[in-house]
Amino acid sequence: MTERLYLYDTTLRDGQQTQGVQFSASEKQEIALMLDALGLDYVEGGWPGANPTDSEFFDAPPTLKAKLTAFGMTKRAGRSADNDDVLAAVLNAGTGSICLVGKTHPFHVRTALGITLEENLEAIRDSIAHLVSNGREALFDAEHFFDGYADDPAYATDCLRAALDAGARWVVLCDTNGGTMPDRIAEVVREVIAAGIPGDRLGIHTHNDTEQAVAGSLAAVQAGARQIQGTLNGLGERCGNANLTSLIPTLLLKAPYAEAFAIGVTRENLPRLMTASRRLDDILNRVPRREAAYVGASAFAHKAGLHASAILKDPTTYEHVPPETVGNQRIVPMSNQAGLSNLRSRLAEAGLTGDDTQMRRILERVKAREDEGYSYDVAPASFEIIAREELGLMPDFFEVKRYRVIVERRKNKHNKMVTVSEAVVVVKVDGEKRLSVSESMDATGSDRGPVNALSKALAKDLGPLQDRIVDMRLKDFRVRIMQGGTEAVTRVIIDHEDSAGRRWSTVGVSPNIVDASFEALLDAVRWKLCQG
Amino acid sequence: MTERLYLYDTTLRDGQQTQGVQFSASEKQEIALMLDALGLDYVEGGWPGANPTDSEFFDAPPTLKAKLTAFGMTKRAGRSADNDDVLAAVLNAGTGSICLVGKTHPFHVRTALGITLEENLEAIRDSIAHLVSNGREALFDAEHFFDGYADDPAYATDCLRAALDAGARWVVLCDTNGGTMPDRIAEVVREVIAAGIPGDRLGIHTHNDTEQAVAGSLAAVQAGARQIQGTLNGLGERCGNANLTSLIPTLLLKAPYAEAFAIGVTRENLPRLMTASRRLDDILNRVPRREAAYVGASAFAHKAGLHASAILKDPTTYEHVPPETVGNQRIVPMSNQAGLSNLRSRLAEAGLTGDDTQMRRILERVKAREDEGYSYDVAPASFEIIAREELGLMPDFFEVKRYRVIVERRKNKHNKMVTVSEAVVVVKVDGEKRLSVSESMDATGSDRGPVNALSKALAKDLGPLQDRIVDMRLKDFRVRIMQGGTEAVTRVIIDHEDSAGRRWSTVGVSPNIVDASFEALLDAVRWKLCQG
Repeated sequence: MTERLYLYDTTLRDGQQTQGVQFSASEKQEIALMLDALGLDYVEGGWPGANPTDSEFFDAPPTLKAKLTAFGMTKRAGRSADNDDVLAAVLNAGTGSICLVGKTHPFHVRTALGITLEENLEAIRDSIAHLVSNGREALFDAEHFFDGYADDPAYATDCLRAALDAGARWVVLCDTNGGTMPDRIAEVVREVIAAGIPGDRLGIHTHNDTEQAVAGSLAAVQAGARQIQGTLNGLGERCGNANLTSLIPTLLLKAPYAEAFAIGVTRENLPRLMTASRRLDDILNRVPRREAAYVGASAFAHKAGLHASAILKDPTTYEHVPPETVGNQRIVPMSNQAGLSNLRSRLAEAGLTGDDTQMRRILERVKAREDEGYSYDVAPASFEIIAREELGLMPDFFEVKRYRVIVERRKNKHNKMVTVSEAVVVVKVDGEKRLSVSESMDATGSDRGPVNALSKALAKDLGPLQDRIVDMRLKDFRVRIMQGGTEAVTRVIIDHEDSAGRRWSTVGVSPNIVDASFEALLDAVRWKLCQG
Repeated sequence: MTERLYLYDTTLRDGQQTQGVQFSASEKQEIALMLDALGLDYVEGGWPGANPTDSEFFDAPPTLKAKLTAFGMTKRAGRSADNDDVLAAVLNAGTGSICLVGKTHPFHVRTALGITLEENLEAIRDSIAHLVSNGREALFDAEHFFDGYADDPAYATDCLRAALDAGARWVVLCDTNGGTMPDRIAEVVREVIAAGIPGDRLGIHTHNDTEQAVAGSLAAVQAGARQIQGTLNGLGERCGNANLTSLIPTLLLKAPYAEAFAIGVTRENLPRLMTASRRLDDILNRVPRREAAYVGASAFAHKAGLHASAILKDPTTYEHVPPETVGNQRIVPMSNQAGLSNLRSRLAEAGLTGDDTQMRRILERVKAREDEGYSYDVAPASFEIIAREELGLMPDFFEVKRYRVIVERRKNKHNKMVTVSEAVVVVKVDGEKRLSVSESMDATGSDRGPVNALSKALAKDLGPLQDRIVDMRLKDFRVRIMQGGTEAVTRVIIDHEDSAGRRWSTVGVSPNIVDASFEALLDAVRWKLCQG
């Protein structure tokens, strides 16, 4: 016997209240379609009339299977619901569902609204009834519900009753300030249900101010609530809202939820969640969190040697769900914490194998180099080169005789300060010396610096090998100073891509950032040449 | 009546199992001292013998009030505890406390260890007894405890009993795979206590694979466990461990924990938590998470218009704890008012003041530059220079006409590859042009790179101003690429110190890392000159 549990996404409304986040109308459109394809029940698009973007979005709303929902607030005091222009703007968006936020905490009714408790109940009743009489599905977001309930449980519950009596489909308990513990959320939900509010009309809306928004939502469901409000990647005001990207896999895959509830997202659709999560980061130009539950790049990375060796025997030894169920994949990174079995599986991925002595030599060298500041778990291509060297499988493709890079800043002929970077790289290929020189000006005329110039010069002319590297592209460049102070060494990680869709990362370490970068660039070229 | 609750930090061990994280021994030392100053009870330093860094750290351990703890595993089958070289290496680290991980799940005993259940119990007993007979405090990390308990509760509990009977101070229930729900954790803890394992000898170790590690830890404490293992910023294998940075403020400030428990961290010390969290990100060159609970820059940012206006009337309307209790501060990004008063107090710190028009101009310029990638939070000296410029208080000390830096790598006369960096800086001081040239060789003969060379050349000869800058020392240099891909801009933060003990930070941004560094160097010199 499964019960239906409803998912309400507020990425486009509460998620937009994240500091630094501002969606355009077309981005909202794209995200709404993505949420819909995933199988969300409700997609809250924003507050029509509150800002130009939200109004623009609702002027040309996407067509969804999900219920597109407009957000607003209960009518203001001293006017009727049908005379409230703010409420009118929300209704005019024409959505089938509307969610209105209203007060339930006596302190807020008095401090923020400056009206009586009865006037507030009337505002809730009148506003919800107005939506229903206009043929809309009505939801009531009970703001500060848990704080209000602590202060005056009878009044807070009366606010819910007022909304339900006026015809609201859902009343949603909001932990607006994010400070309520999951146990307390469960207790209040049980009490509210015992007081006559049906669980299948109760929603939960939590915030992550104690890093427990996910747990708080699940606690409410366990206690009887049947709607969860949350956001993709946990976006939202302050510390964010309940993270649907974590909640959805738990609801679908984990006991006791998977057996007890049916949700709109299917197991077949679940891998779309990771794509949606990454695409949202893309839109916001954020670096995806590697450690994110289920969808992070490290979520199934087994770095500890003991873990890695067991994973090879049976993945369930260190995985609570199979990575492929959420569209993710297992990683066994190479590092000085790794053991021999870890190493074997890493080599197998690259199609390499070796005897125990060779394995130990590779491991020793990895450990020694990591001590100097190298990090192979994020630079598998450099690791592969070390392994190939120890296995005698690394050809001497070419030799770098010398390089030189110049960065010069001075006035140009228009009396404007400009910077020019120029690199010369001298290599010997097949006994023949080749000199290459490059600048690092990009299409916009700005200079991208010495590493860019070196990268271009190194890849400019490898003679007979040139055909095999022409499709390499430098994609990312990360720098870390390994110890404070001027005695630091610099670690550079460089990512490349090629036309076959390969992406590989290499590492270089030196007190000199240019040297470190050049080392990583060199590894990248050598790795690419090994691909034949 | 408060009960003592113990905090066990594993940032330096499980935290080091985060993909991409590799601490140096000196970084471990610094972090251990930071955790100690905060008031942690146990600081787990690593696994002596498992890798060179951990061994180096334990060779010269920091002096702590906290119990410095070495990590290892129970003895292997087929030898006695005093004949196990892995265990011997852990004991040889000489710490007062040792934590050994061991199996409690029959499936793992058979699959991973390939021994009988009784042999595993014997390994636990013998290993723990060996520590105790050597005068050490022993902890037992019960790996996969919750999965093992689900499979065979009697055996899993027997493993705990074996450790306690052999003299372990603590047995720690590890949710190794991170898949156990908080409710289930609480249930198992209650059952284990009912089975005779004392709660005040029970610890909890959770992982964040369902984004519930914090909730799981608190659930265990509610059920009777009295030790929490976690990490700063939630570092750790896969999705990370329980985040102590979130747990500590909740335990100190929130009901029911604040009243029920005493922990080693005091309310007075709590603001150090934010500093420690940021410093750890600094060491790892990670961008601090704005949305982190309690310590994130956005944790008390009130962006929604309704929230912001209420906050001005009474901060408790939208804050579950006052930001200052955790050393954080309120941000009202929409409110010019808050911005201006904020700005005034920052200027006052530098002995500066201005009228409203000047304040607004400074704010606008800061905002525009932060949009380009500058960050003034971490570079107050560069902020002060902007403010001085807008206030007409920034003298034109000197002008940079041009600079050039060359990095060259080639064979020296001994046929060894060496790198030399050389910088030329041309400045005009008091109408007079001055050319300076410097290399960046350090005392050990290694080249420190282009930024070091530029720094030396810039500070080599400022003519009549030279006396005022001779005692400047470049102390730290941090680089961050602000967007992925080759189109990224580079942000450089540079710290300087002088003989008066001042320490100041400046920022530069450019697509060219050398330009960005030079901008930050220039700000540093100009700030120093303002100090008279």
